[in-house]
Amino acid sequence: MIPGMGAVATTLIAGVEAVRRGLAKPIGSLSQMGTIRLGKRNEGRSPLIKDFVPLASLDDVVFTGWDIFGGNLYDAARTAEVLERDQLDQIRPFLESIEPMPAAFNQNYVKRLTPKKIKTGKNKCDLANQIRNDIAEFKTKTDRQVMIWAGSTEVFLEQSAVHQSLAAFEKGLVEDDPGISPSMLYAWAALKEGIPFANGAPNLTVDIPALNELSRKMNAPICGKDFKTGQTFIKTVLAPAFKTRMLGVSGWYSTNILGNRDGEVLDDPDSFKTKEESKLGVLDVILQPELYPDLYKDLYHKVRINYYPPRGDNKEGWDNIDIFGWLGYPMQLKVDFLCRDSILAAPLALDLCLFMDLAARTPSLRGLGIQEWLSFYFKAPDSAPGVYPEHDLFIQSMKFKNTLRHIMGEDLITHLGLDYYTHAE
Amino acid sequence: MIPGMGAVATTLIAGVEAVRRGLAKPIGSLSQMGTIRLGKRNEGRSPLIKDFVPLASLDDVVFTGWDIFGGNLYDAARTAEVLERDQLDQIRPFLESIEPMPAAFNQNYVKRLTPKKIKTGKNKCDLANQIRNDIAEFKTKTDRQVMIWAGSTEVFLEQSAVHQSLAAFEKGLVEDDPGISPSMLYAWAALKEGIPFANGAPNLTVDIPALNELSRKMNAPICGKDFKTGQTFIKTVLAPAFKTRMLGVSGWYSTNILGNRDGEVLDDPDSFKTKEESKLGVLDVILQPELYPDLYKDLYHKVRINYYPPRGDNKEGWDNIDIFGWLGYPMQLKVDFLCRDSILAAPLALDLCLFMDLAARTPSLRGLGIQEWLSFYFKAPDSAPGVYPEHDLFIQSMKFKNTLRHIMGEDLITHLGLDYYTHAE
Amino acid sequence: MIPGMGAVATTLIAGVEAVRRGLAKPIGSLSQMGTIRLGKRNEGRSPLIKDFVPLASLDDVVFTGWDIFGGNLYDAARTAEVLERDQLDQIRPFLESIEPMPAAFNQNYVKRLTPKKIKTGKNKCDLANQIRNDIAEFKTKTDRQVMIWAGSTEVFLEQSAVHQSLAAFEKGLVEDDPGISPSMLYAWAALKEGIPFANGAPNLTVDIPALNELSRKMNAPICGKDFKTGQTFIKTVLAPAFKTRMLGVSGWYSTNILGNRDGEVLDDPDSFKTKEESKLGVLDVILQPELYPDLYKDLYHKVRINYYPPRGDNKEGWDNIDIFGWLGYPMQLKVDFLCRDSILAAPLALDLCLFMDLAARTPSLRGLGIQEWLSFYFKAPDSAPGVYPEHDLFIQSMKFKNTLRHIMGEDLITHLGLDYYTHAE
Amino acid sequence: MIPGMGAVATTLIAGVEAVRRGLAKPIGSLSQMGTIRLGKRNEGRSPLIKDFVPLASLDDVVFTGWDIFGGNLYDAARTAEVLERDQLDQIRPFLESIEPMPAAFNQNYVKRLTPKKIKTGKNKCDLANQIRNDIAEFKTKTDRQVMIWAGSTEVFLEQSAVHQSLAAFEKGLVEDDPGISPSMLYAWAALKEGIPFANGAPNLTVDIPALNELSRKMNAPICGKDFKTGQTFIKTVLAPAFKTRMLGVSGWYSTNILGNRDGEVLDDPDSFKTKEESKLGVLDVILQPELYPDLYKDLYHKVRINYYPPRGDNKEGWDNIDIFGWLGYPMQLKVDFLCRDSILAAPLALDLCLFMDLAARTPSLRGLGIQEWLSFYFKAPDSAPGVYPEHDLFIQSMKFKNTLRHIMGEDLITHLGLDYYTHAE
Repeated sequence: MIPGMGAVATTLIAGVEAVRRGLAKPIGSLSQMGTIRLGKRNEGRSPLIKDFVPLASLDDVVFTGWDIFGGNLYDAARTAEVLERDQLDQIRPFLESIEPMPAAFNQNYVKRLTPKKIKTGKNKCDLANQIRNDIAEFKTKTDRQVMIWAGSTEVFLEQSAVHQSLAAFEKGLVEDDPGISPSMLYAWAALKEGIPFANGAPNLTVDIPALNELSRKMNAPICGKDFKTGQTFIKTVLAPAFKTRMLGVSGWYSTNILGNRDGEVLDDPDSFKTKEESKLGVLDVILQPELYPDLYKDLYHKVRINYYPPRGDNKEGWDNIDIFGWLGYPMQLKVDFLCRDSILAAPLALDLCLFMDLAARTPSLRGLGIQEWLSFYFKAPDSAPGVYPEHDLFIQSMKFKNTLRHIMGEDLITHLGLDYYTHAE
Repeated sequence: MIPGMGAVATTLIAGVEAVRRGLAKPIGSLSQMGTIRLGKRNEGRSPLIKDFVPLASLDDVVFTGWDIFGGNLYDAARTAEVLERDQLDQIRPFLESIEPMPAAFNQNYVKRLTPKKIKTGKNKCDLANQIRNDIAEFKTKTDRQVMIWAGSTEVFLEQSAVHQSLAAFEKGLVEDDPGISPSMLYAWAALKEGIPFANGAPNLTVDIPALNELSRKMNAPICGKDFKTGQTFIKTVLAPAFKTRMLGVSGWYSTNILGNRDGEVLDDPDSFKTKEESKLGVLDVILQPELYPDLYKDLYHKVRINYYPPRGDNKEGWDNIDIFGWLGYPMQLKVDFLCRDSILAAPLALDLCLFMDLAARTPSLRGLGIQEWLSFYFKAPDSAPGVYPEHDLFIQSMKFKNTLRHIMGEDLITHLGLDYYTHAE
Repeated sequence: MIPGMGAVATTLIAGVEAVRRGLAKPIGSLSQMGTIRLGKRNEGRSPLIKDFVPLASLDDVVFTGWDIFGGNLYDAARTAEVLERDQLDQIRPFLESIEPMPAAFNQNYVKRLTPKKIKTGKNKCDLANQIRNDIAEFKTKTDRQVMIWAGSTEVFLEQSAVHQSLAAFEKGLVEDDPGISPSMLYAWAALKEGIPFANGAPNLTVDIPALNELSRKMNAPICGKDFKTGQTFIKTVLAPAFKTRMLGVSGWYSTNILGNRDGEVLDDPDSFKTKEESKLGVLDVILQPELYPDLYKDLYHKVRINYYPPRGDNKEGWDNIDIFGWLGYPMQLKVDFLCRDSILAAPLALDLCLFMDLAARTPSLRGLGIQEWLSFYFKAPDSAPGVYPEHDLFIQSMKFKNTLRHIMGEDLITHLGLDYYTHAE
Repeated sequence: MIPGMGAVATTLIAGVEAVRRGLAKPIGSLSQMGTIRLGKRNEGRSPLIKDFVPLASLDDVVFTGWDIFGGNLYDAARTAEVLERDQLDQIRPFLESIEPMPAAFNQNYVKRLTPKKIKTGKNKCDLANQIRNDIAEFKTKTDRQVMIWAGSTEVFLEQSAVHQSLAAFEKGLVEDDPGISPSMLYAWAALKEGIPFANGAPNLTVDIPALNELSRKMNAPICGKDFKTGQTFIKTVLAPAFKTRMLGVSGWYSTNILGNRDGEVLDDPDSFKTKEESKLGVLDVILQPELYPDLYKDLYHKVRINYYPPRGDNKEGWDNIDIFGWLGYPMQLKVDFLCRDSILAAPLALDLCLFMDLAARTPSLRGLGIQEWLSFYFKAPDSAPGVYPEHDLFIQSMKFKNTLRHIMGEDLITHLGLDYYTHAE
């Protein structure tokens, strides 16, 4: 169940169908293509993840969702201009058969979009219950459900009183509290229905005590937010690399150009602020300036996003990184990432649906609320109170794989490996 | 003890002295600046590595070595043009007090250099024994010794009969076997004297059964080769990142421009071949095309090195990487690394000296011969027969740190971390 | 005479002195190093420009100016951190001997700077007359004078009534009209004294009818504004190249990072607006979208400037250019210019002083007011009413050289050159 | 008439047909889209070039040619993978109707290609006469003819005795002189038939006294060689820019990756040598190190081409340029050109056909032999003995346009423009 059926959702859905028909490969999806090493390096045991843990099969996945623009998914995919026309035409009837339900939307939270087909209700509670009804209806046709937000970035919101407890939140729903944005209505409805909720955008949404409480109460998993796709993906790869080598960083300038609807929405300073916070956080956690003041205390970090229509969904992220090494001598690294927003995001959305569904069926995981082991997928991973979130892509990957090993009763991997060597003493 | 006292060695030695006098920081050195997390994420236990394991102190380090150009280290450092004159002048008397011993050299193995001050001997065995004498002499002045090769890249050598056993090798020394290059003379001499040997260049050197045998026999540690500094450092960071995300790679083109003596030596195709082999190997091991044929089987990998005098020691590595994601859609990543060869290498050389010395004093490590836990430092890490080498920088880093935890009796880290969460079931 | 003695002015003055003493070369200065071809390609007549036209000699140049921070030029140059300390120390007494006069300044026009040493006066007219007195005083010590603005970028001003005639302007001076910025006070004073005025910043200054009128009346030359140094220099090189080849341009994204005082001032949106206007204008004039709608009508042009302290005066300009060729197929060009702001600007400032002085002595030029032949030096060249300004660097260069040929009575060059060929018919 | 009907030729021919049918625009073609300014800047007279000079109309162009692979042009275009399938399908019957004639080929001159359909003959003279017969046949169907070489780069040839006169050359034809490559056979045949000959590859071909003589004798124009498309196009734009600003250049490193047949051919060192010579020459002529030793004498110029299959016809050129400015301070410029080889070349081929045809009909041009005014199109422009070739793109453009003005009796443009200004004296 996908609130927001634009570029990412159509790329995901069209792609899954293409894969099901054998027309393409699910490149980029760890759940479909990834393997997991078990035992020692020389044992040769590396099953596919989907064969190792009991994931839902692609063949059994059914898609639905909500959108503010109406129309069927073939039209939406053509508008998004991500996949080639030829490819879409091969699965056109399938795409045409999916039509989004009207969305709960409020332009105060996403200023640059003008909706065409939305729900109306007397207050936010009413709208949220309409979403619950949509879910209940879908439950009649499917065994299990997962919700993943693929809608736009909302304006920046800070936590307030209405977010502090489930009771306050539910009171706020009735009173139309401005602290409750549309994405929260979906999250509340999903969790209330016992359905896991994942978040592809940097919106506040479930990052509030009220919905954490609801998640644990309902055994409905939640996780981090904002798909880690382009520039931040690379940033959480390079920053750990500099740190492992104890190379200092004096400046990191990141600029993005993108021309899709996401770029248009982020051209609004209020939405950009939400994104910026999500993007700026990663370096501090990874680099630990408090532990390494000589290396990272004075790091100047700047992130810019520019709406640039000529490229459409083809995003470009350019980074300049000023580093310094032995005795303080300066060096520079520049990275230019010519990527595609939705192509990178779609397989992450797929994986999250499948792994959140797995979490919901795994006793040792579902009661935890936050699924920290899925940090791997997010720009803003979530974590327990008092524990910093993990941003380092490689720690995230290790955490992810050792969690799978753990729930299946396999030995965890530590990479110690001294026992490969004949010992002389 | 350093064979080859050019840019890297002088940058290392001048830097250590500058650090000892409080004039600069040992940025880039894990042994000096790194910390190691012990226990849980929220325990706040992150001692400096040098406080956690019993490393030699910088204050106790004494340098010596061999070189083919003669002159004292102040002159050598000025010629290398890595460190600024002002900085060198502050420690000029110290640098002038160190004068390399004449080197064992043979132009057949490094064609672009013309030596000024070298050892002469009736055969390779004689030369190697002269090196042993130099070591014995240095032993009278110091408690413990480590040897690290910082000389040039030799021409490409393949393993032959003379390398297959210590007996064959020692016979070859007397018979001037062409399979024995100067760097092997140093390695043999060091190991024979029970001294650990590390290798900053891609030469074959200890990667032969004969010297593996000698290493184990003498409890004298050896490890991988060729400092992982610029482009390969970044390559072993990005390739694992693509793999964790199941992104395919269709092409990887790497070019380097550098203008120092290293560049000059590598302008000779025979020396370049040695370097090329070292640089080309990393992708196959990291990406596991046999496990992921859809993603990496057709990867076209090309590495070029160009001698380009205008830059001196300031190297530039440019990479173009062609990747593909969801359904096979192509994307590109370009990386331009404006780095400094010796600035990146010097702290690695320092760390290796200190950690090899630690290994030689650690009963559970010294008898292993190959110190795989130091793979972190090398373009061509070494590993036990039948076990592939680890090239992924993050696995290397994990292996390194868990080895330190292991030898000090601390819990290994797995990043599982489920116990941070209150469990509902 | 230089209003604003910061990074550019000190780099200029220190450099001229270094050149006079034979310590360095005036690289980047057309007046000092440039040659001019006379006659046919195979005649071999290419005298130095300074030998071809009667330019003032560097040995005869005397510097003075105004600044808001006080202190001597050695201190100012050290603060600017452009030239190396060693180099400045060689000419320290010379630099210490020059102390700027207190400046006419008003923080409403440059918000990010806090002055230390400024003129006070009862109104703008009073301040302007104080500048005239400074000029008069300098006239007693020198034969001829030129003024060049090297101060900061002021906030964006549009033309208003006070700018429409000299009479209105001089009335505005007395009435403290907000349309009159400090840079206009200097320009008015200079022209009133019959001295040429050039402008290194994008401020409105002489681009108003009032000061155009004064320039012609006093035979005191004026010219364009805003030194064409880094990114715009390259832009006016590449855009003409695309046009000569009839390659379309769909997007041009330019971002800059710089960490000097200029960057700090431009971090204020009002000052940035002035700069942005200056930088955005060039493409439209060069590409002529009205003449080539299929190629350039839909060009999306965006310019960003980011204050980024880690680099100081070392600016970096990154451009992404989306072009299209045959049948509309897209291509991309990316340019990364690692430049130095003041190093590029200083020789332009020198040339402008010498050529403006030449113009003031050349009967066929001095009465023209605007010296369009100096467009070569400016991001925002000036031109006669009804004639578009020339932005194409190569047309500017041709115009410049043919003007010199013209005033010296040499044949203009057209590059026709058919007469090199033996004619068969 | 096109010898070599691969990527460039099919892109040209398919494109011309698409343009004729109104399916696409001839972007990149100066002959089709360019205008020429006549008179003063403010007169607004800028007719299309094709309306100003009597060019052949696209509607009247008929294509034929030779190739070593056989098959029709639809198949050749599909193999080349330059134009999209959809686009080719729209004009499939037209493309299928064109089938190349068997080519004169010899693998000694292009080692990496294995031909399928070639002419056989008893010697080179015989082969050349077969080409003359092909031309004669084509003459029966068309009014006028032009030949343009779009075949591969041949191995490097130096001038020898056989090239020194037409008589020697024609004797060499009979004697199978190894100095005569296949491209020379085509050129000789064309000129002998009085047809202009242009050369898209860097082969020696007409750059020999023998064929210069034949060109003048037959009034059949020749011109430069090797289409100036990607990296060299940009190089001849940037080098003049540095020179106009008197910026020094200490190093220029250019690398190319391309994966088409051209890349494959250039992977052979002998063919690369021919290309390298063509590419290396441009900087020396533009920068005039003999005139500016302080700026350009020590320039280190290196050009690399790498065969890199993942990209096909999509070439990438990466340049690093080390420049220096005021007092010698260093700066860097990096350019990454993601271009498409045949998309850039096709419109140049079209223009050359039309302008060479114009030259052949223009009395003041046809007898000159070398058409220097077409230097604009070539990496290696040709020029009269004793006159250096013009490499500067902007001088080339000026020369081109002033030649057109000259032959049509319009005033030449000098960009002096003093008369736009009201003169006060």
